[in-house]
Amino acid sequence: MDKAAKRAKFEDVWVRIRGELVEHIAGEGMPADAIEWYGKNLDYNVPGGKLNRGMSVVDTAEILKGAALDDDEYYKAAILGWGVELLQAFFLVSDDMMDSSITRRGQPCWYRAPGIGMIAINDSFMLEGAIYYLLKKHFRGTPYYVDLLELFHDTTYQTEMGQLIDLITAPEDHVDLSRFSLNKHQLIVIYKTAYYSFYLPVALAMYMSGVPASYTLQGKTIEPYKVALSILLPLGEYFQIQDDFLDFSAPPEQLGKIGTDIIDNKCSWCVNTALAVATAEQRAVLDVNYGRKDAAAEARVKEVFEAVGVRERYTNYESQVYGQLVELIAAIPEGPERGTLKREIFTSFLEKIYKRTK
Amino acid sequence: MDKAAKRAKFEDVWVRIRGELVEHIAGEGMPADAIEWYGKNLDYNVPGGKLNRGMSVVDTAEILKGAALDDDEYYKAAILGWGVELLQAFFLVSDDMMDSSITRRGQPCWYRAPGIGMIAINDSFMLEGAIYYLLKKHFRGTPYYVDLLELFHDTTYQTEMGQLIDLITAPEDHVDLSRFSLNKHQLIVIYKTAYYSFYLPVALAMYMSGVPASYTLQGKTIEPYKVALSILLPLGEYFQIQDDFLDFSAPPEQLGKIGTDIIDNKCSWCVNTALAVATAEQRAVLDVNYGRKDAAAEARVKEVFEAVGVRERYTNYESQVYGQLVELIAAIPEGPERGTLKREIFTSFLEKIYKRTK
Repeated sequence: MDKAAKRAKFEDVWVRIRGELVEHIAGEGMPADAIEWYGKNLDYNVPGGKLNRGMSVVDTAEILKGAALDDDEYYKAAILGWGVELLQAFFLVSDDMMDSSITRRGQPCWYRAPGIGMIAINDSFMLEGAIYYLLKKHFRGTPYYVDLLELFHDTTYQTEMGQLIDLITAPEDHVDLSRFSLNKHQLIVIYKTAYYSFYLPVALAMYMSGVPASYTLQGKTIEPYKVALSILLPLGEYFQIQDDFLDFSAPPEQLGKIGTDIIDNKCSWCVNTALAVATAEQRAVLDVNYGRKDAAAEARVKEVFEAVGVRERYTNYESQVYGQLVELIAAIPEGPERGTLKREIFTSFLEKIYKRTK
Repeated sequence: MDKAAKRAKFEDVWVRIRGELVEHIAGEGMPADAIEWYGKNLDYNVPGGKLNRGMSVVDTAEILKGAALDDDEYYKAAILGWGVELLQAFFLVSDDMMDSSITRRGQPCWYRAPGIGMIAINDSFMLEGAIYYLLKKHFRGTPYYVDLLELFHDTTYQTEMGQLIDLITAPEDHVDLSRFSLNKHQLIVIYKTAYYSFYLPVALAMYMSGVPASYTLQGKTIEPYKVALSILLPLGEYFQIQDDFLDFSAPPEQLGKIGTDIIDNKCSWCVNTALAVATAEQRAVLDVNYGRKDAAAEARVKEVFEAVGVRERYTNYESQVYGQLVELIAAIPEGPERGTLKREIFTSFLEKIYKRTK
């Protein structure tokens, strides 16, 4: 199946899920205007993204099975995938409010859509609430139901911790580069992005596929969820560092948007890398010019990035982390046994990310 | 034990829980400023309320046992009680932002405290996240763990539905009394308040005390959670109607605050009762004067309330609902068997509420 057909199949499940969610609150006796409101909240905020996170649940389940999923397996994996997308929607709707963002996915942020405003806070809650309604409806009684619940809880809390560090480290309206460090950057990226974007979809598929907490293969005792975490967190970090680097380095026509990390005072890998090696003069330039809504200030920051060699440092980082990830993946013992890890889960992520240009 | 000692004992458990929550995020490697921030979030928003909801978990567990709880039972019930308080804190922090409220519990709302602002959204999320961390830490492995998780999920989602209807029915900045009705009022009250304030604490204590989904007593088959719901939802509705009535009728020195429901365009029982019986002229007075930030307009609304007999209607409602609740409670078969419902659970709530004046 090509990429567009895969996406269309995944989107078909959304239509069904959306119907279930709206019918449920209608069945609770909610008035017509509330039902309509919730439907709009779902339509506006859940299905319009790239869907990489959600579809990777399906992909991972298929790799673990080693064959095409049957209809029921596909549906279950897709529901979990849409659970990840609902979680992301919950975060994005609220992050946009906290960041005073203007647009998201080419349309006004939900809280800026006509007539919405602060009600968007409660709307974001309902996107999160929908996850547990769907899990109860479709997974109650499965042996891994509690694992799914705990995984969503843990990941949600981790992402909230990451969002907290990010918000207090890099408030949009107050620049203080002494709060930044590569260490802080790593912590933010792992907690705010890597857990929910990389570990969550894979671990969901693993639970669904009956991967146990530990097993022995080729004489080695494996704790597969720990192995997955040990690869997917650095992979997620790599993905975000690449994102940060592209925001600075990629031409807008290639990136599909204009990078605004410098202007927005983002705790990006680029500025942290520059801070780690800047001379006193370069540091002074960064202090004065970072996070200003001013193209000339942005240009001066970019000069410092170039002068300290951010491009070369990124190239070095990328080849080093790529090598490490390849090694970690190669060390996974693999056999035809069902319910065991497959290297392809991780290589398929890695190959999608490595040397991407947008 | 007197009321103050009971409260102090319950508050002692909070000190322990607060320590566990802060230690956990410290153990995750969060930076010092984030740990400190989270501690302040917890201190500011969780323990300062009346604690009725939280303490009613302990009270109900004790009634169900028919004897004093031992230390472990007390601690478990109190953790569940603080879970209810955390859920309430999650709602209050975010409701205050959605309602543009100024103060809460005699201090500025958290989002208005210095340096907080929109980060309060994420702070509210972390209060909710804390519940599932605590449940996992203290209840994982108990036979009723999933029941607790589902109960918190269901209740949270119900409360969010109630908040949605309330927000779109009675937006602070747009008065449209045609959206109001006694029916809408009942729906808002049950979803936004009764589930989490009345059913949740009792059902938590029931699960913890081993009350099964159904049992037979004196020849009757009982579904105790359904019985509890059938009493606690009207009880919660009664509580809120009383709250609405006191906001209008009680002198501020008795109420301890100045009622602002009329000025704030609240979908209160009083206005809905008036709307249901108002003449065309009275209705016109309400349309023009309700929800205005203006003492003279408020006085004109109050005149209509008096003219349509809101006081007498409340008295009638109260005696009628009290009678119904007494009957419902009396119909519960009761015996010395462990794990069965006790009427005292419900009468203790009812006697606290009936004819309260503040």
